[in-house]
Amino acid sequence: MSRIADSTRWHEGAERIDWARRFMPATAALTAGLTASGAARGIRIALSDVLEPKTAAVALSLAEAGAEVAVSCVGRDTDDAVAAALVHAGIPVYAFSRATDAEDRENVLALLGHRPEVIIDDGSYTIRLAHTARPDVLAGMAGATEQTTSGVRPLREMARQGALRIPVVAANDARTKSLFDNAHGTGQAVVFAVADLLGRPLAGAHVVVAGFGPVGSGIARHARALGARVTVSEVDPVAALQAVFAGHAVAKLSDAARTADILISATGIAGTVPSEVLALLPEDSAVAVGGGVDQEISLEDAVAGGGEWLTRGKVGVLRLPGGRRIRVLDDGHCINVSAAEGNPIEIMDLSFGVQLAAVDHLLTHRGALEIAVHELPRAADDRVAAHALVAFGGGLDTPSAAQRAFLASWRPRGERDADGDPE
Amino acid sequence: MSRIADSTRWHEGAERIDWARRFMPATAALTAGLTASGAARGIRIALSDVLEPKTAAVALSLAEAGAEVAVSCVGRDTDDAVAAALVHAGIPVYAFSRATDAEDRENVLALLGHRPEVIIDDGSYTIRLAHTARPDVLAGMAGATEQTTSGVRPLREMARQGALRIPVVAANDARTKSLFDNAHGTGQAVVFAVADLLGRPLAGAHVVVAGFGPVGSGIARHARALGARVTVSEVDPVAALQAVFAGHAVAKLSDAARTADILISATGIAGTVPSEVLALLPEDSAVAVGGGVDQEISLEDAVAGGGEWLTRGKVGVLRLPGGRRIRVLDDGHCINVSAAEGNPIEIMDLSFGVQLAAVDHLLTHRGALEIAVHELPRAADDRVAAHALVAFGGGLDTPSAAQRAFLASWRPRGERDADGDPE
Amino acid sequence: MSRIADSTRWHEGAERIDWARRFMPATAALTAGLTASGAARGIRIALSDVLEPKTAAVALSLAEAGAEVAVSCVGRDTDDAVAAALVHAGIPVYAFSRATDAEDRENVLALLGHRPEVIIDDGSYTIRLAHTARPDVLAGMAGATEQTTSGVRPLREMARQGALRIPVVAANDARTKSLFDNAHGTGQAVVFAVADLLGRPLAGAHVVVAGFGPVGSGIARHARALGARVTVSEVDPVAALQAVFAGHAVAKLSDAARTADILISATGIAGTVPSEVLALLPEDSAVAVGGGVDQEISLEDAVAGGGEWLTRGKVGVLRLPGGRRIRVLDDGHCINVSAAEGNPIEIMDLSFGVQLAAVDHLLTHRGALEIAVHELPRAADDRVAAHALVAFGGGLDTPSAAQRAFLASWRPRGERDADGDPE
Amino acid sequence: MSRIADSTRWHEGAERIDWARRFMPATAALTAGLTASGAARGIRIALSDVLEPKTAAVALSLAEAGAEVAVSCVGRDTDDAVAAALVHAGIPVYAFSRATDAEDRENVLALLGHRPEVIIDDGSYTIRLAHTARPDVLAGMAGATEQTTSGVRPLREMARQGALRIPVVAANDARTKSLFDNAHGTGQAVVFAVADLLGRPLAGAHVVVAGFGPVGSGIARHARALGARVTVSEVDPVAALQAVFAGHAVAKLSDAARTADILISATGIAGTVPSEVLALLPEDSAVAVGGGVDQEISLEDAVAGGGEWLTRGKVGVLRLPGGRRIRVLDDGHCINVSAAEGNPIEIMDLSFGVQLAAVDHLLTHRGALEIAVHELPRAADDRVAAHALVAFGGGLDTPSAAQRAFLASWRPRGERDADGDPE
Repeated sequence: MSRIADSTRWHEGAERIDWARRFMPATAALTAGLTASGAARGIRIALSDVLEPKTAAVALSLAEAGAEVAVSCVGRDTDDAVAAALVHAGIPVYAFSRATDAEDRENVLALLGHRPEVIIDDGSYTIRLAHTARPDVLAGMAGATEQTTSGVRPLREMARQGALRIPVVAANDARTKSLFDNAHGTGQAVVFAVADLLGRPLAGAHVVVAGFGPVGSGIARHARALGARVTVSEVDPVAALQAVFAGHAVAKLSDAARTADILISATGIAGTVPSEVLALLPEDSAVAVGGGVDQEISLEDAVAGGGEWLTRGKVGVLRLPGGRRIRVLDDGHCINVSAAEGNPIEIMDLSFGVQLAAVDHLLTHRGALEIAVHELPRAADDRVAAHALVAFGGGLDTPSAAQRAFLASWRPRGERDADGDPE
Repeated sequence: MSRIADSTRWHEGAERIDWARRFMPATAALTAGLTASGAARGIRIALSDVLEPKTAAVALSLAEAGAEVAVSCVGRDTDDAVAAALVHAGIPVYAFSRATDAEDRENVLALLGHRPEVIIDDGSYTIRLAHTARPDVLAGMAGATEQTTSGVRPLREMARQGALRIPVVAANDARTKSLFDNAHGTGQAVVFAVADLLGRPLAGAHVVVAGFGPVGSGIARHARALGARVTVSEVDPVAALQAVFAGHAVAKLSDAARTADILISATGIAGTVPSEVLALLPEDSAVAVGGGVDQEISLEDAVAGGGEWLTRGKVGVLRLPGGRRIRVLDDGHCINVSAAEGNPIEIMDLSFGVQLAAVDHLLTHRGALEIAVHELPRAADDRVAAHALVAFGGGLDTPSAAQRAFLASWRPRGERDADGDPE
Repeated sequence: MSRIADSTRWHEGAERIDWARRFMPATAALTAGLTASGAARGIRIALSDVLEPKTAAVALSLAEAGAEVAVSCVGRDTDDAVAAALVHAGIPVYAFSRATDAEDRENVLALLGHRPEVIIDDGSYTIRLAHTARPDVLAGMAGATEQTTSGVRPLREMARQGALRIPVVAANDARTKSLFDNAHGTGQAVVFAVADLLGRPLAGAHVVVAGFGPVGSGIARHARALGARVTVSEVDPVAALQAVFAGHAVAKLSDAARTADILISATGIAGTVPSEVLALLPEDSAVAVGGGVDQEISLEDAVAGGGEWLTRGKVGVLRLPGGRRIRVLDDGHCINVSAAEGNPIEIMDLSFGVQLAAVDHLLTHRGALEIAVHELPRAADDRVAAHALVAFGGGLDTPSAAQRAFLASWRPRGERDADGDPE
Repeated sequence: MSRIADSTRWHEGAERIDWARRFMPATAALTAGLTASGAARGIRIALSDVLEPKTAAVALSLAEAGAEVAVSCVGRDTDDAVAAALVHAGIPVYAFSRATDAEDRENVLALLGHRPEVIIDDGSYTIRLAHTARPDVLAGMAGATEQTTSGVRPLREMARQGALRIPVVAANDARTKSLFDNAHGTGQAVVFAVADLLGRPLAGAHVVVAGFGPVGSGIARHARALGARVTVSEVDPVAALQAVFAGHAVAKLSDAARTADILISATGIAGTVPSEVLALLPEDSAVAVGGGVDQEISLEDAVAGGGEWLTRGKVGVLRLPGGRRIRVLDDGHCINVSAAEGNPIEIMDLSFGVQLAAVDHLLTHRGALEIAVHELPRAADDRVAAHALVAFGGGLDTPSAAQRAFLASWRPRGERDADGDPE
């Protein structure tokens, strides 16, 4: 039933999945909760995410909690050995590393063919494709959960336009997700990938970061920590001011680009770096996308306008119409996903913990949730963080009775209110 | 009509106010807006805040915009020369540096005697005293605006308990306030004040910070930047985890205190450092409150339990019941206000800009606002930030048509929806 | 015999000296050594340094070790209460806070009138004045020790020109001095003093630092840690490259000055910021000297060329010939000494420890040392550091036998040498 | 005449070498100087270094300057395609990636068979083997230059024991080498390699660094910048105190190891992490060597004492005698060389620039240099830095006449000396 590249490689994949699970305490704790409650038993769950050992560990965990899990992934992000291991463990998988764009789409449709009751998504392609191509499966669903900024944005737009037809949890917006995965995980992964691919020190480099949200500020902070001078471009004045106070220079992208050694787009918005900005970059400078979406750097426009690829690949070289050559990292795809090892495991554990908490929330309140994009309830969010904190060895205080009493009071010390009640 | 210490010192105060105004571009821009719109003309405005040149500049600005301004301040935070300058400029002031607690209260009552239509508050004492002691003045009010975390907390509690009787803007919660004043301004001011008072390098010190909200994280970040090892205590697991990822140790306060060189409370909650924790501190260690409220460190309890003040003042020495001596900075008052020069001017300019925007909001929507604690509308918040950004010399981009189009779309590339509409 | 301002203030001074001694473990350990060995017994020692509680603690310690100590200090850096406390304790002092330049000189001559056998100096004025004005006292001297970069420089020049007539220990160059006092202590003190005097956040400011030696790099590091963007100017290409790799911009001073918010000179060389550079600064920008020497910023030239002081003092305002106004912090004197509380105590303890180790070295080898500028022997330097490390609570390893054996070997593993000896 | 793995892969290697040369401005400038002076014309030069594109670029540059270059490298650090490219360009190479230890030794002997006049070395194995196995070639040599701390150490020991027979330049000790390659390049490369191999965020990790020299402090700084808590162990009290002031904890290695997530040895001394310390590490913790030498972590001892390798490789798992499992990165080899991409190119360019300056110095002063370990003259060192500074876009000032005059003076302002000469 599965479509994968090579089922014989299952053993190698299984070993790496086993190893990854050792370092995922929050996922383990959440899975134990789902198993104990039985909430996932017999539920059809579709998982669409970068297919590497950590994701596979989640799929296996859900299966162990009694769910009927199926998995898909775009070819570019698929690890074939890991896919084989899941199939060997009895989980249907639609993913192989050499898939074309058309095959990627067919794989998601095959996943939707399982008529999932819950979708766990990364980028919301699967959720959106269900709305456009398989609206029939939406009726039976408890809902979906989406873990990226770029994926939540169009879901909110769907809700605004009245096009959304199932409840969705914005797992991305949970504090335990966005404050860690986006700001720390992606920040580190992007900066490491850029430095590794270019083989250059960040120290002494002028790094320009477009966008100062959680991902962009994480990139800027990591680059600066490694000795780079950073200039930030923004459209939001508060975010721009935050960049100023973080010690970065702030300038229009078209001004900053002229002296960039490395330009990283981190807005999640297509067209952020238009071809006119590319034309301003110095010879031998480099561009990359961190987090993000397709055509966040307008490479297609640059080629349409006379640019030429001299080489493509992890470090491509693009000759611009004016003759200058710039380096394009990983064809403009999200460099933290495709060129690095993916986000670090302790951080992915947090994010998967949030996804599992969202699944629990969708199932526990099945039928009672509005058709809307929901926040994960704060208590659930806190529980995921508390599980991880234990693993990091950090102690946590609890408010004392005196502190709780203070929090419930409002009268100035020594005052009675107008009715004469003492404080 | 005023009550101040020494009216002859007005000239010195006036010079310092003039100087401060040179560095307050956001305040100037917002005042210009109020003047042009005439929204503040003839309005009675009560201003309760630390009385130093920057606050006085705001009072004068409002008067120039046509308002009838009156000012009060607790004695501890009053600069008598500045008070004299305001009175000389025709603004009633109730504030003198040697005021007792009872006189502080009388001064606020005198301020309320002006029957203000708007209160600009810092700590919400004036707003709350109006509710308990002068409920008669509430009826005629457009509302109030409060600029601190500790001041907003009891106002929300009042709203929850049904005790609030006027609309209040939580100026503190505006991004342009909390992301800068709390995190940068107070963080820097607290750490500088502690280092100056102790005359020691932060490098090599073990600094324990209770609370990892905007103020606490700012303190921790500044202390670490100066070379301290920082341990954070928290009751919120997400905040605790943020501290871990920021590179701090996280532990229960009672564990961290045992090896603290400096313990700083930054929760805004009374009783955060109870006398049992004080008893664990090493000989010669120091304690201070950053941001915060009265008795955030339970000094009264410590004395009641057998502790003894050997000296009091900016660097007091308290002998604990067990015999160990610890240093208490500025009697446990907010060290950034009382022992330092106050928060830095460029940051205060942002905060005052937010207060003025809140005043504008209250007056423009007078009568139409619910009795509740309101957020400052995002557009108003953005305008304050944009004014300041110009002063910092930072360029700002505007979204292109292509970016705006992308933000309004949600369908996967190349998909039509179920009704056959193309993307 | 002393010349001080007010002998009645001794009690206040004595209390502050006592308090300071609690935080000077290295000084205490070194003094204990001198006392035990008797090396300082009956020796006439002249101490010329900023006269505040920490320096006074050293004078008292030497007296307790049996030396006949006398002290002088320039008026600008004299704390009159501390001077009174030393006199009350029986130590002659020539220092009062309102001394003119001529009186400052007379005070040093009075100190030299004690015919010291050892001079402990800060800035080497006393050592150099002994050479020019009292060469007769040089004959009987064991030597001198000097603790600043600016003071060692002319002593080396004297040695080069054959003008030096006593052995001098360059206490400044000891690792336990320069790696801490210069880089950490002065860096923190300068940045704090600047931020306090200007009342502005460093975050968002453009700070230009002239010179990237230990002091300049410490200033740059502290400013950057607090959120400033830093540009460094240098004449040494290696130091300039270090600044690049530390993440600072590097530019000619005349380029960097044009957009400076704050310009700090940290070279220890007069004329570093000539009046032509002052003329390039923006309106309302500020200049200061960290570490340093007289006329490091050419203020006299600026006034001679048509500039005018609008106000002088801690924050002076100078109108430049072209009309622009800039702020001059503390008249261009070393801001870390005169406007701040002096360098932090734990760091001063290290520096005084080095000075005492140098005194011990001069006395122990009296008569055997060449007339030259000497380094403090490494073992003595290490001992001072080890004393301080204990106070900071840091554990220290000792090399194992295996490690020592490895360090004594040089042959590649498994090789014999040409004579057939096995490794 | 060469011994390489596969001569057909030359084209791939040549392309990568060409690309690397674009980013090596200092190497290019130094080579241009050698070419112009003719100093290297006809000189036999042996180059022993990690054989990757940057090293190959140096070999080609020397050949273009007229030298007869030959190259060797240990198998572990050999890139076979690069080796093929050099052979194709006419340079003899003795290096192939699958070489055994015995073959590695034979390759160096083959290199020495060229009777080099200059050796450019990395680790000083070639220089030392020449002394033990081929002393006959030493007579004709101009000298050698060595670029690592670990390689210079035994050469100094040879000099101390009277075993050294040629002049050697300690290229490692040049400021342009040690301040950048060791502190920035190796620091970044080690931390990136560790984070990549472990797939974990540094944020929140407890990293223990043994040794706080340039390499160790660079590792500690990079780890801390990425959010790790760092503990340093040292045997030198001054270095330990520097670690304290840099904000790290300092402890004995045996204390720190008990709670380490990651332990990195950076001393360059065998036996730094003995098996008794390994036994203290927590389950699943990881160990690595940065910079360094063979058996810096005593893995052979651990296995001899009952430990067992469960897997070996980039991330090996070692079961310790007590049963706990730890991860060993890259079999305990220098992780920055073997598991990462090597040090960043802009930094390697500096280091190679120093090596070329050293070659120039040896050839220019051939016959006139003492048999000893020499420093590179400061002027030569400065020139390398100045070339690189241009490439980084940094402006450099030159001392003004006023500054030079100040530097040549020593008398206090206004003083004449004893003979009456005015200042």
